[in-house]
Amino acid sequence: MADCPFCPGNEAKTPPETYRVERHGAWQVRVVPNKFAALDAGAELTRRHDGLKRTISGAGIHEVIIETPDHRRTLPLLSELDFAEVLDTYQRRYNAITADPRVAHATLFKNHGERAGTSLEHPHAQIVGTPIIPPQVRDRMENALRFYDETGECIFCSLMADELLDGVRIVAQSKDFVAFIPFAALTPFHLWIYPLRHTASFSDATQEQLADLARLLRTVLRKVYFGLKNPDYNLSIRTPPHEARGLRYYHWYLSVIPRVTRIAGFEIGSGMFINTALPEKSAEFLRCAPAEPS
Amino acid sequence: MADCPFCPGNEAKTPPETYRVERHGAWQVRVVPNKFAALDAGAELTRRHDGLKRTISGAGIHEVIIETPDHRRTLPLLSELDFAEVLDTYQRRYNAITADPRVAHATLFKNHGERAGTSLEHPHAQIVGTPIIPPQVRDRMENALRFYDETGECIFCSLMADELLDGVRIVAQSKDFVAFIPFAALTPFHLWIYPLRHTASFSDATQEQLADLARLLRTVLRKVYFGLKNPDYNLSIRTPPHEARGLRYYHWYLSVIPRVTRIAGFEIGSGMFINTALPEKSAEFLRCAPAEPS
Repeated sequence: MADCPFCPGNEAKTPPETYRVERHGAWQVRVVPNKFAALDAGAELTRRHDGLKRTISGAGIHEVIIETPDHRRTLPLLSELDFAEVLDTYQRRYNAITADPRVAHATLFKNHGERAGTSLEHPHAQIVGTPIIPPQVRDRMENALRFYDETGECIFCSLMADELLDGVRIVAQSKDFVAFIPFAALTPFHLWIYPLRHTASFSDATQEQLADLARLLRTVLRKVYFGLKNPDYNLSIRTPPHEARGLRYYHWYLSVIPRVTRIAGFEIGSGMFINTALPEKSAEFLRCAPAEPS
Repeated sequence: MADCPFCPGNEAKTPPETYRVERHGAWQVRVVPNKFAALDAGAELTRRHDGLKRTISGAGIHEVIIETPDHRRTLPLLSELDFAEVLDTYQRRYNAITADPRVAHATLFKNHGERAGTSLEHPHAQIVGTPIIPPQVRDRMENALRFYDETGECIFCSLMADELLDGVRIVAQSKDFVAFIPFAALTPFHLWIYPLRHTASFSDATQEQLADLARLLRTVLRKVYFGLKNPDYNLSIRTPPHEARGLRYYHWYLSVIPRVTRIAGFEIGSGMFINTALPEKSAEFLRCAPAEPS
């Protein structure tokens, strides 16, 4: 595409790349700073307190991961090999960005389609290293810690054990990961993918586990693509701050959120969600959905 | 409109009304149960705990407040008198619904426009009485309580005092209320309207205060309507559970959230928001925006 900054031939339209995967002399995956970055990679970290008003400088890193040179080949349609390179790149950039001393936490996400907030159609993900830990992450950690203190168990492991026992909300499983629709899913077809063995941080996943996850995630995204007819979706890696690697009470996972309903006044006004789909039915639908074109 | 269930003449298309304001023998405001209610007004309240899995029956009340018989007359274009009737109805239904012993909390909100999640164009608000207190409300209460224990002050009063002192984020003020864009607004033109005198619950607002609020809110919504060219928006009343009336540490308020940006992967993945507009500039814009057609 002549006017797409992520297409081959237009490399000069992006800031200089920070990472690339090459194959046969051409790039397969390419990482560049976001041209319209939410944070400033050159800024110094400063904080100011003035009573209730708290300010922190916008120091941080905001990169774009261009997942394929092919403008039209959306993530689930990549080959197994190419898909694995994307996940490997996710982890490499996660590790690189969290190594910056100004970065307290990195959020890795993907917006697919207009309802999911994409402005550029070319397949890409984003990673934002912020100078603060998102309150949402802190809340999850506090709740997980409280559960651990009361029971001696990781709440994520405990929840996953229930899901595996029940079985009815499982969508797919591999050697090291399980994909399911949680018992209290917030929205229809909201998927979680958990590592089966307790692992606190995304950066703790081994090369072998990542390759296994690539196969499972590709299968799940293909079921969503063929079964739900290419819906808009958000994908996000839920992991604690990098300093929290090795925690016994926290467990990283991946969320896939098809945007089939809208966030409206009730959700904004209450923070709760009305889900019109039964998780068991949605899981059954995706379990039976084809991972190949019919 | 022949096919609009909220237009005069189609009253039979809604469930039997629970409240109406009449004028000259016709209804001006009409309240009906939501035909596609999120909760069941006839259900018994039951709870079940099975380890991490918690279930509560969907007992509760979900009503629609039809704000005007005129399909095309959006809320800010109502006369002062009609607007005041709407706010009065909000409070009456809030009081009626929270009196139901199964209702732990009532969320009152309005979706205007497709991006805000409206499916029906005819001006209306909704009120949902849920059998649980939304975690978002509990979180706000916990934080407010901690602040009160540390300082002896209501955090909302304290924040408002800062805003009044700074002045630069104030949009409009009346005898009893102030409308401002908060220092750390989550999205562009995100407005808060606070009662100036400490009041815990929406149901504690007097008739006189509600009449004053009606005038101010109408002015603010007209500034949004004429200044931002009728954007989609959500409106929501933030109030603690009904049992929390009279609290010294909590303070009700009203949020107006123009939907000029989208909630995408970063917001979903981190719970934080990227606001591309400076609150001071947005406030200045709305302060100067006309409340009358130009």
